[in-house]
Amino acid sequence: MSVDEEAVRAANRAFYRAFESLDLTRMAEVWADHDPQSCIHPDGSLAAGREAVLGTWRTIFANTPQMSFEVQAERIEVSGDLAWVVCTEVLRASSSGGAPEGAVQATNVFRREAKGWKVVHHHASPFFLAEPPSPPRAAKGFLH
Amino acid sequence: MSVDEEAVRAANRAFYRAFESLDLTRMAEVWADHDPQSCIHPDGSLAAGREAVLGTWRTIFANTPQMSFEVQAERIEVSGDLAWVVCTEVLRASSSGGAPEGAVQATNVFRREAKGWKVVHHHASPFFLAEPPSPPRAAKGFLH
Repeated sequence: MSVDEEAVRAANRAFYRAFESLDLTRMAEVWADHDPQSCIHPDGSLAAGREAVLGTWRTIFANTPQMSFEVQAERIEVSGDLAWVVCTEVLRASSSGGAPEGAVQATNVFRREAKGWKVVHHHASPFFLAEPPSPPRAAKGFLH
Repeated sequence: MSVDEEAVRAANRAFYRAFESLDLTRMAEVWADHDPQSCIHPDGSLAAGREAVLGTWRTIFANTPQMSFEVQAERIEVSGDLAWVVCTEVLRASSSGGAPEGAVQATNVFRREAKGWKVVHHHASPFFLAEPPSPPRAAKGFLH
């Protein structure tokens, strides 16, 4: 893995740690300073522009008591100042682990800005694990 | 719009024309020659690698009698040899137009290869128009 790919992987993980923190300030730090940027949450709606994107996180965080991810199967490509990552987000109800509650396929796009690699696009859509340990259901309180 | 952005927009439109054609040879031409490449259809599953990606199109085309898109609100960013596009696919039952049957939010990633800009990633997830003219339903025969 190249130095750039390592840096993008770190940025991708920072995004999910910010998501788990449910802290809007942390989430604002991992997103780009500049537009264009956008977000498609699993409900299918599009938010475009930094203000609208952060508004969706404000709503999600206000309605989510807890969130825990295991990020799997990251695929990363970097060229110039753009990178794209595809990964699977396995959602867990408890931060200490527990049975998977479902999974989300995500595409994340990153741009190299003055402060490093930042998220410019997040597209997440739900799918269910092939053999869930219990009937799949939506994670509690999650906009998805 | 820069020359590169124009070229990426043309590649994005060529992808949707290939989709409407239901012709696997045309679809194979708009996708990259090289991996990594991947596809997340609205059912949420991930296909990774050229062979797997084209396999999903073979299945979709075999089960779709007709497909017509209106591609709206393209947002394009290019850097180096990568570009990302976000757009809305409005699905119509008839190629001559007709009422929208539903809509899909898509993220498409392109790579500049020897033969020009090629699709390396397609992520599509369904959502329904804010004011559908009739109750939303899935487009007939579409894997989504």
